[in-house]
Amino acid sequence: MTTKQKNIESPKEYNPMKKHTLLIKCQDTKGLVFKVSSTLLLHNLNIEQNNEFVDKTNNTFFMRTEISGVLDKEKLLKEIHATLQCETNITLCAQEKKSIVIFATKENHCLGDLLIRHNSGDLDANILAVISNHANLKDLVDKFSIPYHYIESEGVTRNEHEDKIISLCKELNPDFLVLAKYMRILSPHFVKMFPHKIINIHHSFLPAFIGANPYKQAYDRGVKIIGATAHFVNDNLDEGPIISQDTIQIDHTYTWQDMQKAGRDVEKSVLARALKLALEDRIFLHNNKTVIF
Amino acid sequence: MTTKQKNIESPKEYNPMKKHTLLIKCQDTKGLVFKVSSTLLLHNLNIEQNNEFVDKTNNTFFMRTEISGVLDKEKLLKEIHATLQCETNITLCAQEKKSIVIFATKENHCLGDLLIRHNSGDLDANILAVISNHANLKDLVDKFSIPYHYIESEGVTRNEHEDKIISLCKELNPDFLVLAKYMRILSPHFVKMFPHKIINIHHSFLPAFIGANPYKQAYDRGVKIIGATAHFVNDNLDEGPIISQDTIQIDHTYTWQDMQKAGRDVEKSVLARALKLALEDRIFLHNNKTVIF
Amino acid sequence: MTTKQKNIESPKEYNPMKKHTLLIKCQDTKGLVFKVSSTLLLHNLNIEQNNEFVDKTNNTFFMRTEISGVLDKEKLLKEIHATLQCETNITLCAQEKKSIVIFATKENHCLGDLLIRHNSGDLDANILAVISNHANLKDLVDKFSIPYHYIESEGVTRNEHEDKIISLCKELNPDFLVLAKYMRILSPHFVKMFPHKIINIHHSFLPAFIGANPYKQAYDRGVKIIGATAHFVNDNLDEGPIISQDTIQIDHTYTWQDMQKAGRDVEKSVLARALKLALEDRIFLHNNKTVIF
Amino acid sequence: MTTKQKNIESPKEYNPMKKHTLLIKCQDTKGLVFKVSSTLLLHNLNIEQNNEFVDKTNNTFFMRTEISGVLDKEKLLKEIHATLQCETNITLCAQEKKSIVIFATKENHCLGDLLIRHNSGDLDANILAVISNHANLKDLVDKFSIPYHYIESEGVTRNEHEDKIISLCKELNPDFLVLAKYMRILSPHFVKMFPHKIINIHHSFLPAFIGANPYKQAYDRGVKIIGATAHFVNDNLDEGPIISQDTIQIDHTYTWQDMQKAGRDVEKSVLARALKLALEDRIFLHNNKTVIF
Repeated sequence: MTTKQKNIESPKEYNPMKKHTLLIKCQDTKGLVFKVSSTLLLHNLNIEQNNEFVDKTNNTFFMRTEISGVLDKEKLLKEIHATLQCETNITLCAQEKKSIVIFATKENHCLGDLLIRHNSGDLDANILAVISNHANLKDLVDKFSIPYHYIESEGVTRNEHEDKIISLCKELNPDFLVLAKYMRILSPHFVKMFPHKIINIHHSFLPAFIGANPYKQAYDRGVKIIGATAHFVNDNLDEGPIISQDTIQIDHTYTWQDMQKAGRDVEKSVLARALKLALEDRIFLHNNKTVIF
Repeated sequence: MTTKQKNIESPKEYNPMKKHTLLIKCQDTKGLVFKVSSTLLLHNLNIEQNNEFVDKTNNTFFMRTEISGVLDKEKLLKEIHATLQCETNITLCAQEKKSIVIFATKENHCLGDLLIRHNSGDLDANILAVISNHANLKDLVDKFSIPYHYIESEGVTRNEHEDKIISLCKELNPDFLVLAKYMRILSPHFVKMFPHKIINIHHSFLPAFIGANPYKQAYDRGVKIIGATAHFVNDNLDEGPIISQDTIQIDHTYTWQDMQKAGRDVEKSVLARALKLALEDRIFLHNNKTVIF
Repeated sequence: MTTKQKNIESPKEYNPMKKHTLLIKCQDTKGLVFKVSSTLLLHNLNIEQNNEFVDKTNNTFFMRTEISGVLDKEKLLKEIHATLQCETNITLCAQEKKSIVIFATKENHCLGDLLIRHNSGDLDANILAVISNHANLKDLVDKFSIPYHYIESEGVTRNEHEDKIISLCKELNPDFLVLAKYMRILSPHFVKMFPHKIINIHHSFLPAFIGANPYKQAYDRGVKIIGATAHFVNDNLDEGPIISQDTIQIDHTYTWQDMQKAGRDVEKSVLARALKLALEDRIFLHNNKTVIF
Repeated sequence: MTTKQKNIESPKEYNPMKKHTLLIKCQDTKGLVFKVSSTLLLHNLNIEQNNEFVDKTNNTFFMRTEISGVLDKEKLLKEIHATLQCETNITLCAQEKKSIVIFATKENHCLGDLLIRHNSGDLDANILAVISNHANLKDLVDKFSIPYHYIESEGVTRNEHEDKIISLCKELNPDFLVLAKYMRILSPHFVKMFPHKIINIHHSFLPAFIGANPYKQAYDRGVKIIGATAHFVNDNLDEGPIISQDTIQIDHTYTWQDMQKAGRDVEKSVLARALKLALEDRIFLHNNKTVIF
């Protein structure tokens, strides 16, 4: 899910001194750990960290390994494929700074949180640009000398609007598109352009309150807890694989606007946590769910 | 909401030395706190604890007051009604031990938790009986010398089954019917018999995963948090006013059976918390929501 | 606790159309709610929100009332004092934007969080200045056009250093001094200058891990939860009245640096929550504790 | 840490069809995963679940593996030792029901919770006996037909009292001694008799409020969160390796007795969680900390 095809060919990938992360997903059989670890040992690579998980319901094996040592990528991948002898999904990527494009609309809290983390180095990613359908947040983004692309949705068709954004994102070529409270629904066409690369923060504890104004829905239902959900975006609104969720207690004194305000803290921390997991290549996608190490 | 009509006439209610709880719900206007507090003062009653809340959206005033002092109930209620000069919902009940009937099916964790709390005196209620559509939990309940009514649902119509239970509950006349993982859906007819008296624990964070096997639904959706919801039962399944909710973090290693096991701890603590609030007359019902002091 | 003496005399305080917050703390006796509410009614004031609490251990009554209506402040205070007939601590302040000075050292997360909240209007306060003993955060603060005072502690005595800051703060005259990860200990002399006005965020769940590097202490102890504590500063390091606390789960895979990073999210949300409570005049101080409505 | 020496010799251990759990702790070097997995493969064993962790600060490798297949225990252990070629701490135990002795004093909530879990089969352990220094809980334990040993501490020296308990526990030979709110401090002599086998629930978020009446201490300090800590017992009171912790929010309305009541729910769930981890051989001890898979 985290492969960046362009990088596989890029020369810097082959820096043999980098640490690498190996992600393997395949049908479970006996001896997989042995097969992978022996191949790594033959390549004289050191396992810095290793996690496995077997989904017994689907008989699927997941393995994430952080390796150090001088690495011949092509040869290693070939030999792992050979030793596993089954249809296998393998990703091997150097541990290096990834790049993101942030989408926002009018609210500044998720965007601002990422900007501050980026400012201190806590966010291990390059922010290539911020894209918005409004001009509101330009001042804020300008302060941090990050390009702000105000792509108006008024006066153009949805397709025209999205095509402009798609074209820009194709050019920028980020590892992830981060929807930091971007209040427009992406078309299936858009989503298909960036498979497994779009991360959204939804302002409810999904699958409760799918759709518009979840805080108003939560208020009307009289819940005692509100939450936020970070997920990959797929074709169905708010139904992509969930990465991270969190909740906070509220009570009858909260109007839906109070909920909205209180929810912002959860939204921004959940989005930041999910993005961190993605940037560290810790997430497998599997049957519309995530396996996270 | 928690008035027990029968008790208003019962002689023990008039023990003038008891502490009382006064619940007032009416349209908000200026001077309500003054009017109530001056009436209480004229009756030489002491306010031990006082809470107010104004729902500005609906212009509704809520007040809960714990009062001590020798109390002429009839006169006090009459005067509060007179001073408030509006359609008012007033409840005045002595702070005394309430009674409950517990409903269960096969799982013992919520029932057992209430039995242990009852055993130590932590549950401030008399358990009049346990009613179940299965015989499984009889041994457990017998240990605590509480009547166990196994009312089989097999071989009878749903109406016949419910009529037996209704008849028993009418006779026992509890303050609350506590559905401690009772896995049958009550008919609107049943619910109407015990308005605002039936408390249910639903094994999900409502309104997510309404209906059967919410843990299986949660597993299929790949959520990272599960929860439980205690609510009053109304005509619509899982849609009554919510009293209490809580959640716990899970991850991809949980099968739905693991979720079910982990969820039990949340279910029992959420149900116990909701029941405590009800027993202490802390809950107002209002537009299918709760106001809780 | 939140009175700003200077403002009592300031003309804008007497804007009779403002909403006001009334805070009363006195010995508990019968009829207090009546006495206050009748005085407010006589002044033709409307109670928008009202909270009371009686600390029975210390026989102390607390009341916070939000009132609207044309208000003769001097007369109202005099009459409340007269009607309560006891030593009473009363504060009456207009609901208007307060001002703060933020202290920081090198970490940007708490400061940055406040700046972003300020930028969107979510922080209901004017940030008069940021004071730091380092130059690191100047760039960030400059982006938001807020004065940054780098007051070096090297090469001067502690007293000299503090005197410079005291002098600046006296001049700026903020309602609150917010220590947003300010890593120097304030002297009793400093604290005495700004009684009940200094709010600190401590990076542990106090009273665990008082003092330096609490995350290192937490790591060494092998805890499974870390937290943060916002508190008023008094003479004893980390022992002032606690306003807000929160915790997060960690596990054995966290180094103390990982804890430090994970803790930042808790620190900033706890500090923001505490500051919000202070800015809304919701906090009473009482026996080195807080009563918060 | 969870080895039961007696069982290594017991015939049922050698049931070759059982699943086994292998725990390895040794100095980290290259190839450890390979070495272990190849040995397991040579024995034709299947890895059902596998977890590794490297503590880089101490250069220590931890591995927990659940294996299935016909197993020659002696040979397997010998070969793993041989292949690892370093000082290694290895435990290999069959996945079978363990046994516990529960200690309690007067409070019934932790004990009762374990009894109810045991009653439904949720607690995967045999409760051999309950030991108490009071008679209070005898009635409750008798209901469940579990031996209750009331060993009075009055009128005997501490040593005499402990010797009686030690003698009983030696005879019962449980896997774990579970202190379910046992309000006496065990002597170093006692602790030494059952190394790494005594699990205690402490009614505070350690290391805050070590010692007597932590809720009273918490009340006096004015904290906004209380918690509970399950830990192994070592020579220093409340300073053993922490297994599990949790917290709940409280506020100024809680007396210390209210905290105590509210804390019970956390205490019992934290203890149950810690015991489950111990019973499933998921805990490594390491430098007065735990590594938990």
